[in-house]
Amino acid sequence: MDDDLIPSVFARDCASRDVLANVTGRWGGLALAALHEGSYRFNALRRRVDGVSEKMLAQTLQALERDGLVRREVQATIPPRVEYSLTDFGARAAAKLVELIELVESEVPAAQAARAAYDRSH
Amino acid sequence: MDDDLIPSVFARDCASRDVLANVTGRWGGLALAALHEGSYRFNALRRRVDGVSEKMLAQTLQALERDGLVRREVQATIPPRVEYSLTDFGARAAAKLVELIELVESEVPAAQAARAAYDRSH
Repeated sequence: MDDDLIPSVFARDCASRDVLANVTGRWGGLALAALHEGSYRFNALRRRVDGVSEKMLAQTLQALERDGLVRREVQATIPPRVEYSLTDFGARAAAKLVELIELVESEVPAAQAARAAYDRSH
Repeated sequence: MDDDLIPSVFARDCASRDVLANVTGRWGGLALAALHEGSYRFNALRRRVDGVSEKMLAQTLQALERDGLVRREVQATIPPRVEYSLTDFGARAAAKLVELIELVESEVPAAQAARAAYDRSH
């Protein structure tokens, strides 16, 4: 926190840095973006977030649930059905993140051209 | 890339995932957010991004420059002055990122309350 107690990610020990790291982490960001499409069961979410291991996805979802971004609901069916969805905070964060992702996706050709030019001159 | 060649961060090998990782990485995100405030010289940027080492900031800026997000300009002064600023793509990505950061900062009290509740029940 800053001296004036307004959270700032620029301050080394501010809790907002941890939350931001969970929101924008390698798997956290993709999990939030997937859940922005709708709720998912664990295995379906794992298929959507191509490349994530079961263990990493479980840890990622736990961290997001702990920060109040993701809701985990166990339905009383046989076998029990566990569904993940976004909280209100999660939905707002995911919406911002998806805008950023869409921008990055649309700029991939430009980024690749920039990389090629950089690699030629360095 | 997807089969239809539209970049998607959900695809394991899509280049968009690498670019997103640089944009939202631990130090990349903070460097972009700082440069959203204006151009910086290296040492001033290092002070703004509290906690980053010289080596990590140099690597971070190189990756962002390579992806076409950051511009590095050497001015012909004595001693030479090196300034970092955002490209057009960098400025648009940083604007989205800053919106996400401001949301996260504003929700820190709620996230901390969610963490306390989670830790009590797990």
